[in-house]
Amino acid sequence: MEKSTEEVYALQLDNQDTLAGFRERFVIDDPDLIYLDGNSLGRLPQATVPHLQDVVKNQWGKDLVRGWNRGWFEKPGQLGAKLADLIGAEPDEVLVCDTTSLNLFKLTAAALRFRVDRSILLSDEFNFPSDLYVFQGVIELLGNKHRLKLLKSEDSITIGDQRIQDAITEDTALVALTHVAFKSAFMYEMESVTKLAHQAGALALWDLSHSVGAVPLKLNEWQVDLAVGCTYKYLNGGPGAPAFLYVRKDLQNQLIPPIWGWFADQSPFDFNLDFTPAEGISRFQISTPHILSMMGIEPALDILLEAGMGHLREKSIQQTEYLIYLAQEWLNPLGFQLGSPLDPIQRGSHVSLRHPEAYRICRALIDPLPDDSSLRVIPDFRAPDNIRLGIAPLYTTYSDIHRALNRIKTILEDGIYQEYSKKQLKVT
Amino acid sequence: MEKSTEEVYALQLDNQDTLAGFRERFVIDDPDLIYLDGNSLGRLPQATVPHLQDVVKNQWGKDLVRGWNRGWFEKPGQLGAKLADLIGAEPDEVLVCDTTSLNLFKLTAAALRFRVDRSILLSDEFNFPSDLYVFQGVIELLGNKHRLKLLKSEDSITIGDQRIQDAITEDTALVALTHVAFKSAFMYEMESVTKLAHQAGALALWDLSHSVGAVPLKLNEWQVDLAVGCTYKYLNGGPGAPAFLYVRKDLQNQLIPPIWGWFADQSPFDFNLDFTPAEGISRFQISTPHILSMMGIEPALDILLEAGMGHLREKSIQQTEYLIYLAQEWLNPLGFQLGSPLDPIQRGSHVSLRHPEAYRICRALIDPLPDDSSLRVIPDFRAPDNIRLGIAPLYTTYSDIHRALNRIKTILEDGIYQEYSKKQLKVT
Repeated sequence: MEKSTEEVYALQLDNQDTLAGFRERFVIDDPDLIYLDGNSLGRLPQATVPHLQDVVKNQWGKDLVRGWNRGWFEKPGQLGAKLADLIGAEPDEVLVCDTTSLNLFKLTAAALRFRVDRSILLSDEFNFPSDLYVFQGVIELLGNKHRLKLLKSEDSITIGDQRIQDAITEDTALVALTHVAFKSAFMYEMESVTKLAHQAGALALWDLSHSVGAVPLKLNEWQVDLAVGCTYKYLNGGPGAPAFLYVRKDLQNQLIPPIWGWFADQSPFDFNLDFTPAEGISRFQISTPHILSMMGIEPALDILLEAGMGHLREKSIQQTEYLIYLAQEWLNPLGFQLGSPLDPIQRGSHVSLRHPEAYRICRALIDPLPDDSSLRVIPDFRAPDNIRLGIAPLYTTYSDIHRALNRIKTILEDGIYQEYSKKQLKVT
Repeated sequence: MEKSTEEVYALQLDNQDTLAGFRERFVIDDPDLIYLDGNSLGRLPQATVPHLQDVVKNQWGKDLVRGWNRGWFEKPGQLGAKLADLIGAEPDEVLVCDTTSLNLFKLTAAALRFRVDRSILLSDEFNFPSDLYVFQGVIELLGNKHRLKLLKSEDSITIGDQRIQDAITEDTALVALTHVAFKSAFMYEMESVTKLAHQAGALALWDLSHSVGAVPLKLNEWQVDLAVGCTYKYLNGGPGAPAFLYVRKDLQNQLIPPIWGWFADQSPFDFNLDFTPAEGISRFQISTPHILSMMGIEPALDILLEAGMGHLREKSIQQTEYLIYLAQEWLNPLGFQLGSPLDPIQRGSHVSLRHPEAYRICRALIDPLPDDSSLRVIPDFRAPDNIRLGIAPLYTTYSDIHRALNRIKTILEDGIYQEYSKKQLKVT
């Protein structure tokens, strides 16, 4: 089968796709709505619909408060144990709880207080701004004893190990990075960077929001200390589904959480007046889990575990390579530039295409065009000039990619984007 | 109609109840399951079932990431504005977000840093232990510059204003109390205590978890500075529904939140590398709201607003008075003691009955008894000896109260509780 920009080639790739059947596990009522934003909000699994209905009608409606004795209390740990499988951790090293920012706050504050003798928190400029805000807030809250040092990257795409090695010093308390960058999809070599941190006596904290469910992770094998991540992107857990945190087993009892919550107490139902942190991962909980939002996660996790991260990564690489091939053939001549690493080893599961008119092109993609009343594409825009296209191999088809890239080509060739305002809406 | 312990009297009261029709707005499939734990987890409103189904199937399933531009982003503020009506606040003084403990953490830390020149955080021993844990954690996190002073109450029921007046000094930074105590239902006179705090130059922070939706609140009129509260108790928002926070308008821009989240930034979609807190109440958000859990709150709030807090409070007082009357007639002779204030002005919407065998009596109440295969009562137990009976006037009937108290009487008279183990399960 020869590589080609023809549609027939995309259809051939779909026919050969051994994971193709997983697409049916998702609610997809409009095949002409091409969804390339699963890295922002994953699709709704079919199984989640009756599951959530049962949670509402039976667990809340009928079990009422007894729901807490029938599994709700254990959910953060139980889902954590299941998620641990996906990220190469032990079941008692992971909790599903709170939000990514909040978990980052908890682990960053705990780590900086643990390494209070060192002053540097090292991160990078292409990290999620939300993560940088959390770091800035923690440093201020702890009395400005630490300083945030940011690795720079001119092109926000690649960064060499040598530069990281130089940046990590004997004064580095914590290296806190996002594994896959939200704009470019640049992916750090987690194992070697963690090793560099350890060699200097620092802890390593990874934000896995754009890598969990997208690339295989082996936190234990790579000796990662701390991690946080999101469940509503590639994990398909639902809008605002609780996030997760990971703390390496032997560190758990050495760290003091900054927020002392009832669920973190050793014996919450004794109603003691003084807080005593629980042993183990439980001390990183805060309080009552958001049950409805929490319950959307499990059916979604089950699908990922069934498909297997190895297979998903293989398809993800094939699909991002295909996308980049089409972009090079069709879009580079129209003024586009690849905003993601060319080498798949350095790339997560999305591809950014850069163009000065990226925002208006995104607006045009979301609307049906005059020549074809049904086809629409949902990408997302990241300032200043990125069209971010997310590949979710559980449900993205090669044909989706072909149609989407072809649509971008048409929008450029026909100047359709010029009909759209430059005024920006909020976009996630 | 003469007061009596006969069932017919309860039925008469139900017939005369102008709020009786609201019971039909809730999913109640088993009239023989008497639910007196709405102060722990409120019942499921009928309207919430299709609403949540729409959120899952249409908003998540079809709108996908566009849901954020179709109302999700605004939910914390929009629901906050609605809730403001219930608590006597302005629309831009309330946010629905995070958990009660987390909101308490945010406001306590912000208040102590605002009044850093004063060293005392004043609370009481009958506050939620979860609140005390948060206070202890904040104090430790801020470097032990403050000290937690707890008002004591021998009987955990009443506490005089004089004792509070003596406890609040020129060194008090923050008076942080729970309006209605979780065990005894003792209710502080919020306005006068707030005034005492202000006279000494301290701020006042109230936890409204057991009062919102149960008693009328006038935060603005009472000049309250800060408040937090829960939406899954009397508000019927669903298990683990996001909590709320209130910050008095003119204080908002003076307080620095301890967690710097993306949703608290002035312009989150500019993706600036440095955090700038938003003006107003938004700065107290953290990050992505838990949409599914958040969406259960609105239909529930609408019911409460329709019924009106004045009417609900009137019925609540009548019902707790009736419950106490039956307890005095039937249960005091069997070794029970009232664990709540006798004066309704000092009492919230639940009643605690104390008995040395409270735990086993609770276990027996939850099971059907041999003489009547269907009747069961869900109270909850609070160590060491409280049976807590919650009155939710939207759906609790006088007949419910009669049958429940009668059942407790039978369990005692027939010694049925003795068949139950003393080993405690978790109970919320």
